[in-house]
Amino acid sequence: MSASLDNAEYVALRDRGLRLDLTRGKPSPEQLDLIEFPEGNDYLAADGTDCRNYGGLTGLPELREIFSGFLQVPVGQLLALGNSSLTLMHDIVAHALLFPLPGSVGGWLGNSAFLCPVPGYDRHFAVCEKFGVEMIPVPMLSDGPDMDVVEELAAGDERIKGMWCVPKYSNPTGACYSPATIERLAGMRAAADDFRLFWDNAYAVHYLTPGGPAQIAPILDACERAGNADRAFVFGSTSKITYASAGVAFFGSSPANVSWFLGHLAKQTIGPDKLNQLRHTRLLRSADGVLELMGRHREILAPKFALVDEVLRDGLTGVASWTRPEGGYFMALEVPEGCAAAVVRLAADAGIALTPAGATHPHGDDPRDRTIRLAPTFPSLADLEQAMRGLVTCVRLAADGYRP
Amino acid sequence: MSASLDNAEYVALRDRGLRLDLTRGKPSPEQLDLIEFPEGNDYLAADGTDCRNYGGLTGLPELREIFSGFLQVPVGQLLALGNSSLTLMHDIVAHALLFPLPGSVGGWLGNSAFLCPVPGYDRHFAVCEKFGVEMIPVPMLSDGPDMDVVEELAAGDERIKGMWCVPKYSNPTGACYSPATIERLAGMRAAADDFRLFWDNAYAVHYLTPGGPAQIAPILDACERAGNADRAFVFGSTSKITYASAGVAFFGSSPANVSWFLGHLAKQTIGPDKLNQLRHTRLLRSADGVLELMGRHREILAPKFALVDEVLRDGLTGVASWTRPEGGYFMALEVPEGCAAAVVRLAADAGIALTPAGATHPHGDDPRDRTIRLAPTFPSLADLEQAMRGLVTCVRLAADGYRP
Repeated sequence: MSASLDNAEYVALRDRGLRLDLTRGKPSPEQLDLIEFPEGNDYLAADGTDCRNYGGLTGLPELREIFSGFLQVPVGQLLALGNSSLTLMHDIVAHALLFPLPGSVGGWLGNSAFLCPVPGYDRHFAVCEKFGVEMIPVPMLSDGPDMDVVEELAAGDERIKGMWCVPKYSNPTGACYSPATIERLAGMRAAADDFRLFWDNAYAVHYLTPGGPAQIAPILDACERAGNADRAFVFGSTSKITYASAGVAFFGSSPANVSWFLGHLAKQTIGPDKLNQLRHTRLLRSADGVLELMGRHREILAPKFALVDEVLRDGLTGVASWTRPEGGYFMALEVPEGCAAAVVRLAADAGIALTPAGATHPHGDDPRDRTIRLAPTFPSLADLEQAMRGLVTCVRLAADGYRP
Repeated sequence: MSASLDNAEYVALRDRGLRLDLTRGKPSPEQLDLIEFPEGNDYLAADGTDCRNYGGLTGLPELREIFSGFLQVPVGQLLALGNSSLTLMHDIVAHALLFPLPGSVGGWLGNSAFLCPVPGYDRHFAVCEKFGVEMIPVPMLSDGPDMDVVEELAAGDERIKGMWCVPKYSNPTGACYSPATIERLAGMRAAADDFRLFWDNAYAVHYLTPGGPAQIAPILDACERAGNADRAFVFGSTSKITYASAGVAFFGSSPANVSWFLGHLAKQTIGPDKLNQLRHTRLLRSADGVLELMGRHREILAPKFALVDEVLRDGLTGVASWTRPEGGYFMALEVPEGCAAAVVRLAADAGIALTPAGATHPHGDDPRDRTIRLAPTFPSLADLEQAMRGLVTCVRLAADGYRP
């Protein structure tokens, strides 16, 4: 065999202009056809991608398009990923501990802290606790966290790397962050140049009052205008829109942050479940389709929240106070100081399970022992009424000094 | 209101024996009914769990049951999780860096190394590279890694914390670990008491020859018998059984390791996509159902592997050598030393994309520049024949000294 002969063969080969790929261990289309896509054979994304096969790290563009407006993130900066936004928050904290964020030279590991508006979400706090990130409580007001406190802490302590925020229908009070609060969060001075807002917009479309979801100021825009373009990580999901177990979670941020995360994500997965994303796209169709579905959720949920308010007004006026959320999944009940743990124990003894007292605070420690999170969505109206009337009895008993 | 009145009310309440739950923000069944489960309204697991709602961290028992035998892990120690086993391996390395494994007092962070049989899987190596874990190549033989080398390294260096293993139809050579190899891996002395085998049984049922999948010795049993019960982390998935994008990944290990992982997982997610797991259970039905489906995959894939072998015999006998796997997704082609990179470049110029030369080695560095991974599954037979004939031309040209 001579070099020139082979070379001629090769020239002929090259001239054929092949486009063939032997790089990756992907199943062939015939293999994918062996089983039937449950919803018929509709498995092609808008751009022709076979959603059954590997790939597509950023998620389906058509699904990201539907949620781009609700989450206030441009489609190009919004990723559609797995079934859990909690996983995304957890994983981003883990990565930020180990790897420098854009604009930084080292990870957070060693000595970092988060600002935690209280009452807040126990699963946020559990992520910090797991990774040894110190939690600094800040008071939650009716229009968001107490910004005087937040600004002073963030500016004065470079260990403060992050802050948990549920900006719309906050867990558990239902408060929505005001435009002024959002403007201050975006613009405030942070001692840590890699400070990030963990913007968990979990209830972006989950409204209870007529007229559709509340509007909050778009955080990425506010951060960019303030010269802090990389400050916010935005999260969302369809867990409480379609299915809690089988939804789609979203992550959005600045281009630099999205590149940072995609770089790390590419070593963690070949891509999300695109079939489930396609299923979501087919079902929801558009932003209007989402709002229409959320209207039907509202028809089921609004009477439950109204019932809770009614039973509390009936039984606890003058004894306790509570929030009246216009969206979201929770209400915060404030019982007299020192009574929350007793109420939860009394209720448990009567067969009524409540979120543990203290769960709304870092490390489960509510220093005034007075906040109880109520979750009225799951029980039937009849069960809910029984549970609430029982709860009223327990609160009155505890407020009167009785301890189980 | 008097304490005794309230107390009487409370006694009456308690006597009613309620069982009500206001703890978590779960959607109600009526909300879940708003949209239709795509496969009809069949959303109940065998134990009555509503697979649409939150929960079930360990995955559906009936799906774990189907794969328990193939993965050689007792159902109680096998978890069914998300769509990617790579994610599980990545996350377990991340957790082992930060948190002590059972039997250890600290994480691996700082100074750790993995044994990497070569040629091996580039995505395994990428996980180590990402986290700064040193990779120590060990030669891959026809019955598994060279155990003389492995034993000497593991016993002599306490930085060696892990080892990547694809024990059946290994990526890319197709080798199966012999019973003696598995026995030695399970029983060898490791200087690090938190040494772990990352047992990526990716091709447990992916056979190409008649007669069903090869049998390998069960690693967990071997480890337990050898007094190293916590040594192996077992991984598997249905990515190449059902759908690459929308499969289910599995993790199995000793009870202590499973508890360790579940403890960390509980802060990362509320649970996997149980609807997809139910879909898998309905489709696959049983272990026999899996084997029947794999037989149909085999009918598609075996002719492709046979074609590759035929074209190579035709064109490269005496020039190169290659493996003839009895299962899995890859073949390893060994071209003359110093030629692999040239072959890949020549092929690329002719429109034939090959896995980059070196991808089968840590950091993409194949010191003898001779191993090329072939992935024959995706192209049609006609495309595959063209690509392979073109590849033969490129190998002959490079072997003759031609450099592009």
